[in-house]
Amino acid sequence: MIATGVHLSPLTPVAFLERTAAVFGHRTGVVDGERRLTWAQVAERSRCLAVALQQAGIEHGERVAFLAPNSSELLEAHFGVPAAGAVLVAVNSRLTDDEVAYILRHSGTRLLVVDAALEALGRAAARAAGVARILVCDADAPGEARTGGDSYAAFLAGAGPGPPEDRLTGEDDVISVNYTSGTTGRPKGVMYTHRGAYLNALAEAHHAQLDARSVYLWTLPMFHCNGWCFPWAVTAAAGRHVCLRRMDPAAVWHLLDAEDVTHLCGAPTVLVMLAADAAAHPLERPVSVTTAAAPPPPTVIARMEALGFRVNHVYGLTETYGPITICDWDPGWDDRDPAERARLRSRQGVAMVTADRVRVVDDGLRDVPADGETMGEVVMRGNNVMKGYLDDAPATAAAFRGGWFHSGDLGVVHPDGYIELRDRAKDIIITGGENVSSIEVERVLLRHPDVADAAVVAQPDPKWGERPRAYVALTEGAELSADALIAFARHHLPHFKAPDAVEFGALPRTSTGKVRKNLLRERARHGGNSGLLSV
Amino acid sequence: MIATGVHLSPLTPVAFLERTAAVFGHRTGVVDGERRLTWAQVAERSRCLAVALQQAGIEHGERVAFLAPNSSELLEAHFGVPAAGAVLVAVNSRLTDDEVAYILRHSGTRLLVVDAALEALGRAAARAAGVARILVCDADAPGEARTGGDSYAAFLAGAGPGPPEDRLTGEDDVISVNYTSGTTGRPKGVMYTHRGAYLNALAEAHHAQLDARSVYLWTLPMFHCNGWCFPWAVTAAAGRHVCLRRMDPAAVWHLLDAEDVTHLCGAPTVLVMLAADAAAHPLERPVSVTTAAAPPPPTVIARMEALGFRVNHVYGLTETYGPITICDWDPGWDDRDPAERARLRSRQGVAMVTADRVRVVDDGLRDVPADGETMGEVVMRGNNVMKGYLDDAPATAAAFRGGWFHSGDLGVVHPDGYIELRDRAKDIIITGGENVSSIEVERVLLRHPDVADAAVVAQPDPKWGERPRAYVALTEGAELSADALIAFARHHLPHFKAPDAVEFGALPRTSTGKVRKNLLRERARHGGNSGLLSV
Repeated sequence: MIATGVHLSPLTPVAFLERTAAVFGHRTGVVDGERRLTWAQVAERSRCLAVALQQAGIEHGERVAFLAPNSSELLEAHFGVPAAGAVLVAVNSRLTDDEVAYILRHSGTRLLVVDAALEALGRAAARAAGVARILVCDADAPGEARTGGDSYAAFLAGAGPGPPEDRLTGEDDVISVNYTSGTTGRPKGVMYTHRGAYLNALAEAHHAQLDARSVYLWTLPMFHCNGWCFPWAVTAAAGRHVCLRRMDPAAVWHLLDAEDVTHLCGAPTVLVMLAADAAAHPLERPVSVTTAAAPPPPTVIARMEALGFRVNHVYGLTETYGPITICDWDPGWDDRDPAERARLRSRQGVAMVTADRVRVVDDGLRDVPADGETMGEVVMRGNNVMKGYLDDAPATAAAFRGGWFHSGDLGVVHPDGYIELRDRAKDIIITGGENVSSIEVERVLLRHPDVADAAVVAQPDPKWGERPRAYVALTEGAELSADALIAFARHHLPHFKAPDAVEFGALPRTSTGKVRKNLLRERARHGGNSGLLSV
Repeated sequence: MIATGVHLSPLTPVAFLERTAAVFGHRTGVVDGERRLTWAQVAERSRCLAVALQQAGIEHGERVAFLAPNSSELLEAHFGVPAAGAVLVAVNSRLTDDEVAYILRHSGTRLLVVDAALEALGRAAARAAGVARILVCDADAPGEARTGGDSYAAFLAGAGPGPPEDRLTGEDDVISVNYTSGTTGRPKGVMYTHRGAYLNALAEAHHAQLDARSVYLWTLPMFHCNGWCFPWAVTAAAGRHVCLRRMDPAAVWHLLDAEDVTHLCGAPTVLVMLAADAAAHPLERPVSVTTAAAPPPPTVIARMEALGFRVNHVYGLTETYGPITICDWDPGWDDRDPAERARLRSRQGVAMVTADRVRVVDDGLRDVPADGETMGEVVMRGNNVMKGYLDDAPATAAAFRGGWFHSGDLGVVHPDGYIELRDRAKDIIITGGENVSSIEVERVLLRHPDVADAAVVAQPDPKWGERPRAYVALTEGAELSADALIAFARHHLPHFKAPDAVEFGALPRTSTGKVRKNLLRERARHGGNSGLLSV
């Protein structure tokens, strides 16, 4: 740990709320439905949470879980739990009872706070996991509906005066555990530190240009990598949080106008939903959209920019506090034509300002040439990389082999140094000895006007080893044959990259919006007849 | 020091140049007269400097001094010297031979780089201090005029290939030593660390809203607290540095237009000079001006805002990496009337985003009430406070007594938590047991349309202990009697705060623009007859 002294204070994002409440205490910090909380109120509620947790016997480093939609309560948990010296586990509310129970059990959660809307799920999982205590937030009548031992409001109200005891042993203390989505296997618990969260939050604030006039709309789930550190970043900048409990495009369009929103984050699917919504309209002032997850197709980026959104493309993983790279915009690109701008913008880019250089390497950890063609694995290290997986030294050692975090993502480096992802390592299709990027094929399919969604996976092939097979959802009312789409793909791609087979139907996705390619691969292995597509 | 690991990299601003050169290498990073250097060139020159320093036998932690105006060379020194593991001493070029020699000797400087325009001063001081080696930068024909052993260009050209050896032992390593202006006594060597410089630079970039479109004009000397960390902040944001070798208002007005300047920093006197210059004109786009040193009179702030400058008021000391507080603008103040906005803006404000809370305390280190009236000493601690004074443990211990850095500045805390300076501890006037802030009296005098400059100091008084005495420079052509000005002061101030005596003439200032009140106090002690005023 860092030595202490007059000139050394531990880096912790808890300090951001203290500062913002001290400076802008009278300003609205959080909007959550009908509730509008000043920064002073947010800070006081977080203080009460921290003090009440300590009163309840929660010790330094113990885990406190929240199962809640984007809400004032989950936001204050990002400050109150670490202020108590405890560790926040924000659980994905779209999981099943079993999955939530696994996370509660694995994390050793002592206390679970659950939103009233998720009470059944939370109680079932807590029971299965043997969680000692459960508290319920009643969003419709906060602090009133419940007065018993399970009321979150009553829990806060029971907090004594004064600040919580300072139990931070240093900035390398764990601040939160975020579980991977686990497309295959059990989710792993990714440990974030106070220092990492602090630095990543400053980087997010810098790259998104957040300030005291910013109004941030919570379309991204806060349980997803701690909302990419935006609970801390927006608070550091003294911007305003506007909570959205359910992703609903019409509600987003309403809030964009009603709350003067300036910033939001979301997966490309969120962008697609917004662009397609009946309420879509050109914006009166630019709104910055930070997007990540699967690379957004250039067409989506172009469509959003035409409406007035400024798309900020980032990339990262749960293991990197959410975003670690940004497609940092070169002002010299401003006057390129829209298609070229969209192509440039769709790349994953370069390390953010507080991150170490992100590399693309071969099996010997040597940098691949920056030729835009040679694929390698994306690896990272530095302050924006997790401390490790909770209680899983073997998985941590495997992920950190050679002193670098191995993302499992395959990409290329362009001559200008910008990284572009080609695929997840396990999603690559190897046909006749050639690597085919499933993402590259998907992008071509998405350029067809009748295609709304597409995923390409490897299908075992006796002659070529593997061949690309496409799963495609058409736009409403469209009629398109597999043959016509294959012909389209062969027109735009080398023949060997074009799929040989196409199936139509909605794609199976995880709760965080990722296509479940493992299911599609399974289906492809059985010749496409296992009926797994959710149509 | 912080432990190392895959998830921990030392915080150092050297990383900012590496990142910016990797991302925006082809873009212009520095403009210095006719020279325009890309970021790739700046990075390469800094690499050469680091490698050449190591080749020259400069060891980890050894001091390398630069005596130069704002220039590409001094900028690259902020990266190349620390990249070598050495410590930068940027020497104030307005000092005398003796003062420079003292700094070179006290810092144990091994190697001095001097700009050709300052060669005589540098050689005399280096000789007196016994500095082993001197290198000269020839600004008019860089890399050509000199080829001998004393050519900085030849020194860089002699650097071997590859990166310098990484000698950083940790982020708490000293990155630079900045000497206090020493209005009384010998200057002290203030040690900055890599970590502190990194965090302060991020804070400056955040509060000034620097980004890749920013163009920063170097009106502030880079030798002054490492240019308030802006060499690192502008580079982190991948903005553009425009060097200004001599402060010249007409040149500033020319560059504002010719280089599309968006940001600059300067003492209030710089603002006054700009506002008064014949070339002054309303700006086509807003320019952000970060100003500090003596509190700018509200009238100056109002004048600058009318021309289109956005004034960003900060406060700090050499011991706090330059600025540590900012008068963080509450958007709710936008529609106040101009005088009220200027009054709010003239306060020193609150801690910057990476700084710990700045306090105003009584003799027992207890916070004074936030009543806007009770004076106390401003104290700080945390990552934006120096590591200590070089080779001066007693002075460090005295400055850090009670675990806080004592600024020696007296201020009040307003009910909204914003700090306002009232005086330097030693500048306060105690009359009849009442504290009179010399700044408060000076502000009133400056409101008189005939007054261009004013300083108020204590004059010994047999009855009251001390009485305020004013030294005043009038605007050109103005005629104003001492009696008339005293009457004006008595109209706007309680009688006991108004000066009893006024002397007219130009005020003596230090090379960094501070009024040398110690000289004025000396003069006042002798009844105003020692002839020290430089008229």
